[in-house]
Amino acid sequence: MDAQNLQHLVDAVVSSLFVELEASGRHVHVTKEQARTLFGHELTPKRPLSQPGQFLANERVTVVGPKGEFANVAVLGPERKAGQVEISLTDGRTLGVEAPVRLSGDVKNSPGILLRGEKGCVTLPEGVIAAQRHVHLTPEDAKKFRVRDKQTVKLRTYTSRPVVFEDLAVRVSPDFASYVHLDYDEANACGFRKGDLGRILP
Amino acid sequence: MDAQNLQHLVDAVVSSLFVELEASGRHVHVTKEQARTLFGHELTPKRPLSQPGQFLANERVTVVGPKGEFANVAVLGPERKAGQVEISLTDGRTLGVEAPVRLSGDVKNSPGILLRGEKGCVTLPEGVIAAQRHVHLTPEDAKKFRVRDKQTVKLRTYTSRPVVFEDLAVRVSPDFASYVHLDYDEANACGFRKGDLGRILP
Repeated sequence: MDAQNLQHLVDAVVSSLFVELEASGRHVHVTKEQARTLFGHELTPKRPLSQPGQFLANERVTVVGPKGEFANVAVLGPERKAGQVEISLTDGRTLGVEAPVRLSGDVKNSPGILLRGEKGCVTLPEGVIAAQRHVHLTPEDAKKFRVRDKQTVKLRTYTSRPVVFEDLAVRVSPDFASYVHLDYDEANACGFRKGDLGRILP
Repeated sequence: MDAQNLQHLVDAVVSSLFVELEASGRHVHVTKEQARTLFGHELTPKRPLSQPGQFLANERVTVVGPKGEFANVAVLGPERKAGQVEISLTDGRTLGVEAPVRLSGDVKNSPGILLRGEKGCVTLPEGVIAAQRHVHLTPEDAKKFRVRDKQTVKLRTYTSRPVVFEDLAVRVSPDFASYVHLDYDEANACGFRKGDLGRILP
């Protein structure tokens, strides 16, 4: 087998067993109206994210909690139907808010917070969560790994401090690219480096 | 079986299977000479820690890195033969140092840092590490769990975000009390709350 075919074989084996890991830093989602209040206009894309259609915005906000604040926090687009702040539990200690561990969009009865942009402020009455660790899968990859949307699975990380994360939520959509999303507490706990892989356990 | 006997039975079963988890925040160890430079005197105990003979000192330091600093950092006593700073990888990003994951005391070729006390400053030429997750065990508990000093094991956490931590170092000594020590990245990644337990996997 020549080198090119060998590489194809290795790629096929790797992609049949593993999903790439990504670490999500603290970030904010806003509505169009909130974007206009905070920045004077809607979000403008700086660069695309791994999930198709999603982008990092040029605009940044300060997240102000009762005990502390974070300046220069990433805002992700496109705009959503409700504002949301995704932080790690470590961030929550700094801000002084107790963020529940939830899937994105599930913000009912979560703490509120203040967002400050260069043109104005927005008070979110709720929306501060620690994102539950999850894996985005295409329907093809979900079939390959024999998992279904809304299921939870265990994932072993092939990282410098190996960990098996239980309670990893599975989300399946033809709009997704297949990636595992960890927050920075989880990424550091397993010694994640860009390019590291994880394996969904049977 | 009456309530008291039932409680004894439950305690016996729990202690035969589980070890209590503790989260270690960032902290500093100093030599006697460093203590005199930083504070003008040796360390004075504020309260005992879970490990026999170890204590949280009344004295606190500022840890100054190239990118940021932490004020009011705990100093643990008694004094040691070499200064050491134990931080999480998250802390390392804030300070701007790349801390290797090491067992306490294994500081060779680790980054240095500046310590500032109320009476003076000390430059550590090396000593900044992220503590490798580890379990302190009495010889009796090591025997019960069938593990040996210097071995590594897997540990499942019975926490709100369950995790199996691989590469947990085992340390056995008659001077220890049996506790698992995680850093705050690990504690937050598994949703640790005070009193939570872990189980060493076979």
